Amino acid sequence: KKKRLDNCYRRTIRGTNRARGIGLQLVKELANSSNRPVAAVAIIATARNPAASTALQDLSKTHSDLHIVTLDVSSEQSTSSASEQVQSILGNSGLNCLINNAAIGFSTNISTVTPEAMMTMFQVYTVAPLFVTKAFLPLLQTAAANGMGIHRAAIINMSSVLGSITLNCGDTAKFRSYVYCTSKAALNMLTRCLAADLEPSKILCMSLHPGWVRTDMEGPHADLTVEQSVSGILSVLFGLSEQDNGSLDYHGQKLQW
Amino acid sequence: KKKRLDNCYRRTIRGTNRARGIGLQLVKELANSSNRPVAAVAIIATARNPAASTALQDLSKTHSDLHIVTLDVSSEQSTSSASEQVQSILGNSGLNCLINNAAIGFSTNISTVTPEAMMTMFQVYTVAPLFVTKAFLPLLQTAAANGMGIHRAAIINMSSVLGSITLNCGDTAKFRSYVYCTSKAALNMLTRCLAADLEPSKILCMSLHPGWVRTDMEGPHADLTVEQSVSGILSVLFGLSEQDNGSLDYHGQKLQW
Repeated sequence: KKKRLDNCYRRTIRGTNRARGIGLQLVKELANSSNRPVAAVAIIATARNPAASTALQDLSKTHSDLHIVTLDVSSEQSTSSASEQVQSILGNSGLNCLINNAAIGFSTNISTVTPEAMMTMFQVYTVAPLFVTKAFLPLLQTAAANGMGIHRAAIINMSSVLGSITLNCGDTAKFRSYVYCTSKAALNMLTRCLAADLEPSKILCMSLHPGWVRTDMEGPHADLTVEQSVSGILSVLFGLSEQDNGSLDYHGQKLQW
Repeated sequence: KKKRLDNCYRRTIRGTNRARGIGLQLVKELANSSNRPVAAVAIIATARNPAASTALQDLSKTHSDLHIVTLDVSSEQSTSSASEQVQSILGNSGLNCLINNAAIGFSTNISTVTPEAMMTMFQVYTVAPLFVTKAFLPLLQTAAANGMGIHRAAIINMSSVLGSITLNCGDTAKFRSYVYCTSKAALNMLTRCLAADLEPSKILCMSLHPGWVRTDMEGPHADLTVEQSVSGILSVLFGLSEQDNGSLDYHGQKLQW
């Protein structure tokens, strides 16, 4: 019995805290997927305030393998409490996949950026993924020790092409959101540090660019539907190999750091 | 009349706040350099507590073109006050070169890292360079508008090879200081954002890796003496060209992001 965790927590400065967007769609697809790895017998969806997500609540009513856990990734206490709850749900089988997907919806340019906005983004996009990962590490290690495959457990950090320093140049440097670009670049470095540190434990770590997706946060002009993005993400997750360790991926294609 | 600013501020958790290490040596070399660009007629050294640096005080006694300004890069008020003082020293000629070199001396691995340590490093290594740059931007823009060369003003962010995500892999990923690596990667992204935003104003921005230097912070086993490092840094500074815009350099050699 192996388990899968999807951290679909989202928080926006617009005051909403419902699980939605890519995180919600990931949970939906995983819950309904017929080609889900046999290992993934439980799905754990986290949100800062799950009661506010009707969609998530409805989904859990029809899927007994979907567990909802409250998690505020910016709170050490909440993170610690969530990992204890997940431990009690999973028992001794451990956690196969942790997806750090918490998002916060604002952008700033060189004129509007503030120190507070920078620090908030580093907190949510870089520091929180590290400490959520550390809190769930014992469960990932258990899965890795129990497992049979090359990669027995994985950490997926939801990053962005906007965190690619190499690509932030010339024509592709059109969207210079200081808060977003810097915190996602830092997240990519975090991915590399974790990939190196956890490789001996057979825990894979990668950064994944989900594409530019038509979520509430990104608006209607983005390239992909949420369904298209999540379909690509899942095909990457289902086909993880050693080559993905420490990489920045977009639907199976490597991106430059 | 053009001016040069060296931000040699350093702060360590050991409670000292004397200007020293690479910053102090940069000021020394610039003050004594015979091949200094004609443009650099004033050198401004900043430190959180300049009175504590005997070396800096002694240097200023024998060099009338060296000005010492108090600057705590973590304080918006101090940054704003410092930029006003520098404006009054430089008058209408502007500032040719800003070196963001503030450092803080600690490291953490996956076991010892804390959220507070992460946030402190992002503050000092990523957020402060952005807001020091913003505070001095009008002076840089003045120099750029007055200048004759291809690059009329420059911002140098003191980065590190440890901030290179590409190189943080395999054998080169031996020093996984989560706080240092992530904040320097974020600084490199900041460099790219600034390089793109300020290019139309003819202000160049680059990240510079000074080498592994035998400072108080790094210890006696590092590769280079402070003199060797600073000699290399100055030869890069004196030979800046458009190709350096948005680059990560080590003594004139490009490093991967």
